[in-house]
Amino acid sequence: MSGAIGVGMVGHAFMGRAHSQAWRSVGAFFAPPLTPVMAAVAGRSAERAAAAARTLGWASAESDWKRLLERDDVQLIDVCTPGDTHAEIAVAALEAGKHVLCEKPLANSVAEAAAMAAAADRAREHGVRAMVGFNYRRVPAAALARRLVAEGRIGEIRHVRAQYLQDWLADPDAPFTWRSDRERAGSGALGDLGAHIVDLAQHVTGQRLVGVSAVTGTFVPERPLPEGGTARVTVDDAALFLARTDGGALASFEATRFATGRKNALRLEVNGSKGSLAFDLESLNELSFHDAAEDPATAGFRRVLVTEPDHPYAGAWWPPGHLLGYEHTFTHQAADLLTAIAGGTDPAPSFADGLQVQRVLAAVETSADSGAWTTVEGSGGDGR
Amino acid sequence: MSGAIGVGMVGHAFMGRAHSQAWRSVGAFFAPPLTPVMAAVAGRSAERAAAAARTLGWASAESDWKRLLERDDVQLIDVCTPGDTHAEIAVAALEAGKHVLCEKPLANSVAEAAAMAAAADRAREHGVRAMVGFNYRRVPAAALARRLVAEGRIGEIRHVRAQYLQDWLADPDAPFTWRSDRERAGSGALGDLGAHIVDLAQHVTGQRLVGVSAVTGTFVPERPLPEGGTARVTVDDAALFLARTDGGALASFEATRFATGRKNALRLEVNGSKGSLAFDLESLNELSFHDAAEDPATAGFRRVLVTEPDHPYAGAWWPPGHLLGYEHTFTHQAADLLTAIAGGTDPAPSFADGLQVQRVLAAVETSADSGAWTTVEGSGGDGR
Amino acid sequence: MSGAIGVGMVGHAFMGRAHSQAWRSVGAFFAPPLTPVMAAVAGRSAERAAAAARTLGWASAESDWKRLLERDDVQLIDVCTPGDTHAEIAVAALEAGKHVLCEKPLANSVAEAAAMAAAADRAREHGVRAMVGFNYRRVPAAALARRLVAEGRIGEIRHVRAQYLQDWLADPDAPFTWRSDRERAGSGALGDLGAHIVDLAQHVTGQRLVGVSAVTGTFVPERPLPEGGTARVTVDDAALFLARTDGGALASFEATRFATGRKNALRLEVNGSKGSLAFDLESLNELSFHDAAEDPATAGFRRVLVTEPDHPYAGAWWPPGHLLGYEHTFTHQAADLLTAIAGGTDPAPSFADGLQVQRVLAAVETSADSGAWTTVEGSGGDGR
Amino acid sequence: MSGAIGVGMVGHAFMGRAHSQAWRSVGAFFAPPLTPVMAAVAGRSAERAAAAARTLGWASAESDWKRLLERDDVQLIDVCTPGDTHAEIAVAALEAGKHVLCEKPLANSVAEAAAMAAAADRAREHGVRAMVGFNYRRVPAAALARRLVAEGRIGEIRHVRAQYLQDWLADPDAPFTWRSDRERAGSGALGDLGAHIVDLAQHVTGQRLVGVSAVTGTFVPERPLPEGGTARVTVDDAALFLARTDGGALASFEATRFATGRKNALRLEVNGSKGSLAFDLESLNELSFHDAAEDPATAGFRRVLVTEPDHPYAGAWWPPGHLLGYEHTFTHQAADLLTAIAGGTDPAPSFADGLQVQRVLAAVETSADSGAWTTVEGSGGDGR
Repeated sequence: MSGAIGVGMVGHAFMGRAHSQAWRSVGAFFAPPLTPVMAAVAGRSAERAAAAARTLGWASAESDWKRLLERDDVQLIDVCTPGDTHAEIAVAALEAGKHVLCEKPLANSVAEAAAMAAAADRAREHGVRAMVGFNYRRVPAAALARRLVAEGRIGEIRHVRAQYLQDWLADPDAPFTWRSDRERAGSGALGDLGAHIVDLAQHVTGQRLVGVSAVTGTFVPERPLPEGGTARVTVDDAALFLARTDGGALASFEATRFATGRKNALRLEVNGSKGSLAFDLESLNELSFHDAAEDPATAGFRRVLVTEPDHPYAGAWWPPGHLLGYEHTFTHQAADLLTAIAGGTDPAPSFADGLQVQRVLAAVETSADSGAWTTVEGSGGDGR
Repeated sequence: MSGAIGVGMVGHAFMGRAHSQAWRSVGAFFAPPLTPVMAAVAGRSAERAAAAARTLGWASAESDWKRLLERDDVQLIDVCTPGDTHAEIAVAALEAGKHVLCEKPLANSVAEAAAMAAAADRAREHGVRAMVGFNYRRVPAAALARRLVAEGRIGEIRHVRAQYLQDWLADPDAPFTWRSDRERAGSGALGDLGAHIVDLAQHVTGQRLVGVSAVTGTFVPERPLPEGGTARVTVDDAALFLARTDGGALASFEATRFATGRKNALRLEVNGSKGSLAFDLESLNELSFHDAAEDPATAGFRRVLVTEPDHPYAGAWWPPGHLLGYEHTFTHQAADLLTAIAGGTDPAPSFADGLQVQRVLAAVETSADSGAWTTVEGSGGDGR
Repeated sequence: MSGAIGVGMVGHAFMGRAHSQAWRSVGAFFAPPLTPVMAAVAGRSAERAAAAARTLGWASAESDWKRLLERDDVQLIDVCTPGDTHAEIAVAALEAGKHVLCEKPLANSVAEAAAMAAAADRAREHGVRAMVGFNYRRVPAAALARRLVAEGRIGEIRHVRAQYLQDWLADPDAPFTWRSDRERAGSGALGDLGAHIVDLAQHVTGQRLVGVSAVTGTFVPERPLPEGGTARVTVDDAALFLARTDGGALASFEATRFATGRKNALRLEVNGSKGSLAFDLESLNELSFHDAAEDPATAGFRRVLVTEPDHPYAGAWWPPGHLLGYEHTFTHQAADLLTAIAGGTDPAPSFADGLQVQRVLAAVETSADSGAWTTVEGSGGDGR
Repeated sequence: MSGAIGVGMVGHAFMGRAHSQAWRSVGAFFAPPLTPVMAAVAGRSAERAAAAARTLGWASAESDWKRLLERDDVQLIDVCTPGDTHAEIAVAALEAGKHVLCEKPLANSVAEAAAMAAAADRAREHGVRAMVGFNYRRVPAAALARRLVAEGRIGEIRHVRAQYLQDWLADPDAPFTWRSDRERAGSGALGDLGAHIVDLAQHVTGQRLVGVSAVTGTFVPERPLPEGGTARVTVDDAALFLARTDGGALASFEATRFATGRKNALRLEVNGSKGSLAFDLESLNELSFHDAAEDPATAGFRRVLVTEPDHPYAGAWWPPGHLLGYEHTFTHQAADLLTAIAGGTDPAPSFADGLQVQRVLAAVETSADSGAWTTVEGSGGDGR
C-alpha cells in the first residue's frame, strides 16, 4: 500500500497543535510510504474549528466529529480530545473502518479502555489499525534505552526509578480547571503523568508491573473558580507507588504537579546487572549510560548525545549535536503509524497496551484506598 | 502591509531543509503579519530541485535561481547555497527588488560582503529588506542572555569566553570535501564556526571586537579523495583568537573541528560586574545565570530552563518544560523577518552586521599570519 | 568547662580511621572549647590495636574495650564497632560515667536501641552526654538545607525524595561477608543505608515519618565464601518504602546495593510551597536550591557551592571554592560534640533520635512482610 | 633510608595551615617510608608563631626562619611564605643541606627562579632534594588525566583549553592588599592562578609551551586602603594567552579574578586524536573522559568518579564514592616527597620545572606588552 491517506483530527487544543505539526512535517524528514493529507479538523465550535484549520494547515473544518467518519477522503482519525471522550470517538471510528490514533491516557476507566481494546481487536480483522499516543516512547533517547535493554547491555534488571515531576499546581491560588474534576479528568497527576511513566518504564524494560503499593494525596483541597468562589478538587495532586515487575525488578513511581521548580521532569533510571540507564525529559537529547564491564579506572556514566545518524529517529533530522525538541516525538509517531498502516502491521503501542496501563493505574488507586499491596489485573500472579 | 508573501529558496541541502521547515511552521505558531507562500525552490539540477520541492513542500521548482528573480509570485529570496555564491545571488535579488534572507557567513571575503552591504543600503531606499541568517541569535536562551545584558543585570562586562567545538574532522581519514578547499569555502572552522560565535558574542553583549590576536592550524594537511588519491587541505582546522571589545572586555574565541567528543558545542560565557551568563548549544534550552547581588548563602549559577511563556519565542510553542530543538531558530528567524518586512523596518542582523563579522574574521587571518595584534577594520581604534 | 578531654576509641577499621582523622584535625580548624587527647584505642587483637594506635595517632592501645572504662584519662568513649556490639559498649560506658559517641545505626534492633536511649536518659542526669553518629547531617550542604527549611524558604513541604544508591553487591560473585548475615548486621541495605536517609530526611525537613509501606528484596540469594562453598544471604539487598510525615508530606525512600554505577549516591530532594532543595553526596559540596518567588524569567535551580564563610562549618576550612571531602563530616561532628560537652548541653542527634530511626526501620520490615501500610511506633497516629 | 624526618615550616597563614594538615595526616593514610616529625614553625612574630604551633600541631616555634636552618632536628624546610621571599629562604636552606618544599610560584621573577634551580642542582649532588608545590598535580582526577595521556588513550593532542577563574576582586570595593602590589606579588592573576594552569596543562599533556600571544588587563585601577584613601593596582586582574606546544597542539589559557560566580574554577580540557579529557576543580573528584573508539551509539563523555582503589592516591583514603577535598592534595604531595627523599630520587615538580613555568609567565608579560607572538625562553624554537 502506498499513495496518500486522508487524516481527520478531532480536537485542536494543545495536542491538536502538536499533532498538526507532525502531519505537516513527517513527509519532509521520513519519506513515509503513505503521504498524509490533512483533510479536516473537527471541533465543537464551527468558528473555532475553521480558525484552527487555517492556522494549523487543515484543508477543511467540521463542527461534529461524526462528520469525519462519513467522509470518504478521511481514512485515519486522530483523537486529540480530553480522555472522557476517547472511548466514544475511537470505537465509532474503528467501527466505521477508520484507522485511529488516540491520545493517552486511552480512557478514564478500565471499562472504557477494555471496550476500546475490544473494538481494536475487531477492527484488526478488517485491516483497520489502532494506536495509542504514548509519544515519549519515541524520544530518541528513550528508544535508544529500550534498544540497549533489548540488546542485553543492561543485563538482568534490578531497579526501575520513574518520576514525572511538574509544578503548575504548587501555587494554591492556581485556578480550578476541568483537570481537577474527577468527572472530566478521571484522575489527577496519576492519569495525566503517571500513565506516561508506567508506559515508558514498561516499554524501556520490556517488563510489566504485576503489583503495586500506593499513596496519593491532594495538598490543596479547594481552588478558586474564575467566576468567583471555590470548587473542591476531586483528583489526586500526587501519586506515589512501589511496584514489582514480572522480571523480578523493584520499582518506584511518582507523579506530581507539586514538585516546585520541576517543569517537565519525566525521569527514568534503570539499574541492571550489566549496566544502568538514566533519562530526564528536561534534557531530552541525552541518555546516561553506565557499562559495568568497563575498566573501573575509566568507568562512569556517559552522557550520550542522542543525535547520531544511527540513533533511533535522529538520522532523519540534522547532523550530530543538533538537538530535537518536544514535538518531534509526534512526528516520529506519525511516521511509524503510517509505516504500519502501509505495511499492514499493528502499530505500537496498541489499545491493548493502553488498557494494560489503565489496569496499573486502577491498581494504584485501589492500593491507595486500602493501604494494601494490590495485584494488577491480568498480570497473572499475586503481584508480590 | 499584510496578506501573503511569495518565497523563493535557492539551494535545498542542509540549510534548505531547515529553512523549509521554518516556512512551513511559522504560520502555525507565530501568526506573522505576512503569510509565507512557498512558491518555488531553485537548484542546479532540475530533477533534484523538483524532488526537493515535493519533499519539502514547495509549489514549484526552478533549475536556475535567476528565474526566481523574474517571477511575480516571488517577493522574498532565501539564499541557502554555499558562501561563494552568496554575493552574486543576493545582490541580483536586491537589485530585482526582492527581499533577501542570506545564510551565514555573508560571503567568503570582505570585498564581497562589502558589496552586499552596499546593495542592501541601496535596496533599503526602495523598501527592500535584507537579513543575514545568524540563526543562533534566536535560540531563546541566547535571546534571553541578550535581554539580561541589555537590562543591566550583568553590569559592566569584563570577560567573554566563546567556543564553537565540533569534531567531525578529528579523524584523519575523513574524506576531503569542498569545505576543506579555500577556493570554495573561503576558510575552514573560522568562517563556518567562528562567524557564529563572533556574531553571537557581539549580539549578546552589545559590544564589538576592536582588535584580535590569533593562531590557526591545520592538523591534517592531506585528506583522501573519494575517487582515490589525496588532496591538500587549504583551510584552517581550528582558529583561536583573543580580542578586546569596544566596551573594555577581554575575550577569547575558539573554533575547531577537532574537539573530539564535542558535537556542536557552541559555548558562550559572559562575566560582568553584576552577574554572569553561560550557554551551551548542546543544552540549548538552558541558560546559566549568576546574580552577584544574591545573598552568598544561596548564590549560585541557576539553570534557567528557557521555556516559560515570557521567555523570548518560547511562549509561542509549548507549555513550560517542553523543549525546543535546533530548527526552531529558523522559524523564529522567519517570523521576525516577516514582521520586519510587513512593518517596513530593517530586520536584524543586517548585511552590515554580516560585513562587520567578516572584517573580524579577516583580522583574525591577518593576525594568524603576522603573529601581531591586529585592529579590526572600521572599529575606530587601534584595537588594543 | 574547658581544657582537655581524653578520648578512647573502640574499633579501628573504616569508621575508626575516619574518627581518628577527626580527633586529629578538629583542634586546627575549630578551636573547640575542649581539646581532645587521643588517649587510647581498643581492639580485639592487642597486636592490631597497637599498630592502629601508631598509625592513627593514639597514645596507647587496649585489647579489651572494658579497660577504657576503667581509665581515668578517658572521659569520652567513641564506639566504632559493628552494630551488634553498640548496645553493650555504649550502655556500659554511660554507666561508667563516660560520654559516648556511637556510630550509626544506633543498634540492630528496637529493643537494644531503646535500652541505649534509656541509659542515655539516666546518664544525662549526671551530666554525661550521648550522641549517635549520623555524620551526614554535618555535610555543609545538608546543614544548609536544614537551615533553609527552618528559615521558611521552602514553605510547606509536600514531597521528600530520598535515595541511597550503591552498587558494591551488584556483582553476584562478590563474596559473602558479615554484612550479608542477619545475625551480625541486623539488616542489609535498610540498616546500613536506609538509616542514613531516614535520619537525614527527618533532620533536614524537621518532620518525622508516621507510617510506611515497603518492599524489600534479595536479588542474589547465595554468595561465595572466601574459603569455598556458598552461604545464604539473610538480609535485604534493597529496601524501598513510601511514607507520610507528620507535616503532611508524601515521601519515598530507597536504599540499595544494586544500583549499578552509583557509588555513594545519597540523594535528597525536598519540594515545598515556596521552594525546593536537592542534594547528592557524590557532589557533596553542592546544594541545588530553587526559590519559587523568583521572577520566572530567571528562575531555576541554583548550584550553590557550599564553601562560603557563612555556610555551616565551611568557614573554618578554606577560602570559597575549595572543596571539602567525606571525612570532614566527622571533624564537624567532633567539634559539635566537644562544644556540647563543654557547654553542658545535649548533642544531637541523641540516642532517642537513633531509637526513632530504628523504629522507622522496624516499621519498614513489618510492612515489607505484611504488604500493608504500617504505623511507626511512637509516631502518635495511625500513619496514614 | 627510613625512620623519621624533622620538618620546619616557614609561614603559617593559608598555605601553612594546609601543609600542617598534610604533615599531620600523611602517616595515617600513606605509610610513608619516613615519618614526618613536626618540629618547628617559624613566623616573624614570636607570639603568633607560638600560637600557630599550638593550633597546627608543631612542637616548637621560631621567630626567625634562619634558626630552623641551624637546628639539627630539622632536615626538611617547608616554605609557605609569599613569593618574594622564596628565593632567599630556599637557597639558604639548600645550602644548609636541608631538603626544601617550596610553595608556588617558585619565585616572582625568572632571575630568582633560575638562582633557585641552580641551587637545587648543586644540592642534588649532596643528596639534598627540592620540590615546588604545584599541588593540583596531585588531585586524583588530574593524576588520572596524566596517566590516560601517557597511556596513549587520548592520542595525538590537538587542543588544550585551560582556565583558572575566580571572582574575589570583581567587586571594585574589595580592598587593596599586597596581592595587588607588583613589588610584593610579582604579578596578579597571572602568577597566582596562571602558574597553576601552565604547570597542570604541561604536566597532564607531557608537552611544554613554546610560544605565546597574550593580553592582560586591570579592570579596577584603584582600590580602597583599609586605612582610608586608595592605592594604585599595579598587577593584572586577568591574563589571557594563546600558545603552541612542542607537540603541535594549540592551547588557550585564561587566569582571572573577575569571573563573577566562579569561585575556584580551574578547568582543563584536552582534545586528542583518540579521546578527550575535561576537569574542573570545583568538581575535583570527577574526570570527564571521552573515548573516540567507542561505538557512536553509546559514546559520550563519561563522568568518572575518581575514588576507586586503583585511581591515583584514592585507594589510600576511603571506599569508592567517598569524596576527597582540597587539602588532600597537600597530603599526597607530602607522601610523594617523603618517598623521594627516602628513595634518594628527585621529587617532581622540580625547581627546574618551576623555573620553566616562570619563563612561560615572563613570555606572557612580554607578549602582552608588545602585542607580538613571543617565544618561551629555553623552548628551543621560535615558538610558532
